[in-house]
Amino acid sequence: MIPIALDAMGGDKAPVETVAGAVQASAEGVEVVLVGDGTVLEPQLQALGADLEIVHAAQTIGMGDDPAAALRDKPDSSISVAARLVKEGRAGAMVSAGSTGAAMAAAAILIGRAKGVIRPTIASVIPTPGTSTLVLDSGANPEVKPEHLVQFALMGTVAAEVFFGMTNPRVGLLNIGEEKGKGRSLEKEAYELLARTSVNFIGNVEGRDLATGRADVWVTDGFVGNVLLKVTEGVAAMVLDLATESLAGTAEIKLSTVVDALAPVRRRLDYEHTGGAHLLGVNGVVVISHGSSGRTAIANALRMAHDGMERDLVGRMTSRLAGS
Amino acid sequence: MIPIALDAMGGDKAPVETVAGAVQASAEGVEVVLVGDGTVLEPQLQALGADLEIVHAAQTIGMGDDPAAALRDKPDSSISVAARLVKEGRAGAMVSAGSTGAAMAAAAILIGRAKGVIRPTIASVIPTPGTSTLVLDSGANPEVKPEHLVQFALMGTVAAEVFFGMTNPRVGLLNIGEEKGKGRSLEKEAYELLARTSVNFIGNVEGRDLATGRADVWVTDGFVGNVLLKVTEGVAAMVLDLATESLAGTAEIKLSTVVDALAPVRRRLDYEHTGGAHLLGVNGVVVISHGSSGRTAIANALRMAHDGMERDLVGRMTSRLAGS
Repeated sequence: MIPIALDAMGGDKAPVETVAGAVQASAEGVEVVLVGDGTVLEPQLQALGADLEIVHAAQTIGMGDDPAAALRDKPDSSISVAARLVKEGRAGAMVSAGSTGAAMAAAAILIGRAKGVIRPTIASVIPTPGTSTLVLDSGANPEVKPEHLVQFALMGTVAAEVFFGMTNPRVGLLNIGEEKGKGRSLEKEAYELLARTSVNFIGNVEGRDLATGRADVWVTDGFVGNVLLKVTEGVAAMVLDLATESLAGTAEIKLSTVVDALAPVRRRLDYEHTGGAHLLGVNGVVVISHGSSGRTAIANALRMAHDGMERDLVGRMTSRLAGS
Repeated sequence: MIPIALDAMGGDKAPVETVAGAVQASAEGVEVVLVGDGTVLEPQLQALGADLEIVHAAQTIGMGDDPAAALRDKPDSSISVAARLVKEGRAGAMVSAGSTGAAMAAAAILIGRAKGVIRPTIASVIPTPGTSTLVLDSGANPEVKPEHLVQFALMGTVAAEVFFGMTNPRVGLLNIGEEKGKGRSLEKEAYELLARTSVNFIGNVEGRDLATGRADVWVTDGFVGNVLLKVTEGVAAMVLDLATESLAGTAEIKLSTVVDALAPVRRRLDYEHTGGAHLLGVNGVVVISHGSSGRTAIANALRMAHDGMERDLVGRMTSRLAGS
């Protein structure tokens, strides 16, 4: 199988954690090529006693760089080089924990948008009980039109089929009320359009439906979706802390027992264990990881990218979009 | 002290729970007048062996009614009558668990907007660790302009001073990144305007800051604020269920011990124990409760309204808005 191009210079903990994550995924059979400054990456690999292919990239895009400008001014950045490897077919997917904006721009411009796609979208997975929930857009497009939401619904449907193995996943429109006619003009118009598509549209969903699991795919604009993700993260951390404190105050329960028992819940809700989010609607598998990703998150992101390649995410997405 | 007008017909559990909540608050010294159908309310009071004043209102606005039309077509609805009692000075505040839209319209039209206020706003309390967080707008205005966010920041500042006893509360702009320049054009423009006001603006906040407590007052549009509230509720319920399940699976811990130990956390995060949200920017104290409020929520909403009256919420809001 062709390898996955990892932007080994991207993220707050690069290159130590990116290289370690790549070595970990590689040990499990995921083929990875490291993209970045060879003089930095080579010693990291040696320290881990590992041998992975390196494709040299002399430049690095910082988190503070303007994405469009960085893409133009730093043609040899690790993000751009990784994207070109995918474009040229030398890599089957790309993973980056670097600047999300730069990764999106590199994917859209260098790899290219899939035919018919107006706006590529970031699909994030929320680890809800039972089956997970896919939220899109979760940050790529803060301001959208109703027709964009319809494409997000289509792309989310394919992604839920590919990643969760679902048939006819249920699509909900994130709104501030259950009834039709609720929300901004965006939601009112999107509701009408969604009802006429081939997706399994179940109507509006609200925040508390994260606990009820009424829909598998949630569509919204990238501002609301991003707020949703981060609030989920913040509230989960807050509630687990409150629960730990309250339980540890009970005479019958030891703190260590509580911490041990809650560890699987913490892990389940931790983005480190999700790995990243898929950028959908481009001509390649692209996984965008959290800027603070450690080795576990990077390894998981590489596994996600691997699954996307193996299950032909791009081919299935393209044919679904063409048929819509 | 003049009494609080309770829309005794509003909410899914009216009149049984509304009357019971009123009786509960009244026993604690909160003066309440029940507004609604006397033939329904009188037997409820008798069943509880209580004696509260009733102001008859022959009509009721349903959850499905169009707010503006209902306000025009049902002049004797319990919501309208309650609002008129406030307008006429016969009641010092109004509480309703009925249609939020109708309560807002009744407050804005019958009680009247405070001088200089463009849009009244709903301020909800999120029970974050340490001190609580005030979120506004949390549902009144799904689509807003930057100058509305500035007024929400001013009103939220006064509300945090009045309700939390804070001095110079920290105001954050809910956004999808910490840095200035992030977000939609709404956030970009509001950021510039907020930096020039007298409020203690600390910049952008993100979902995960609910756990860090970086700001006391969060401003955003009513769509995002409402999603935030409901996601908080959904995630809190989900995480508590996961935690309970995980802990109960531990041999050393009994399920009953877990449930008992988590009860205070559940209670803290339960809207029943918050009671309701304040509608700010009108010429009276108005508390809007959850449609599914039980007696505890109603009693708490009445206490909130009582606090608002006692602490001169409206007077302080008016003078702050006039000085801005």
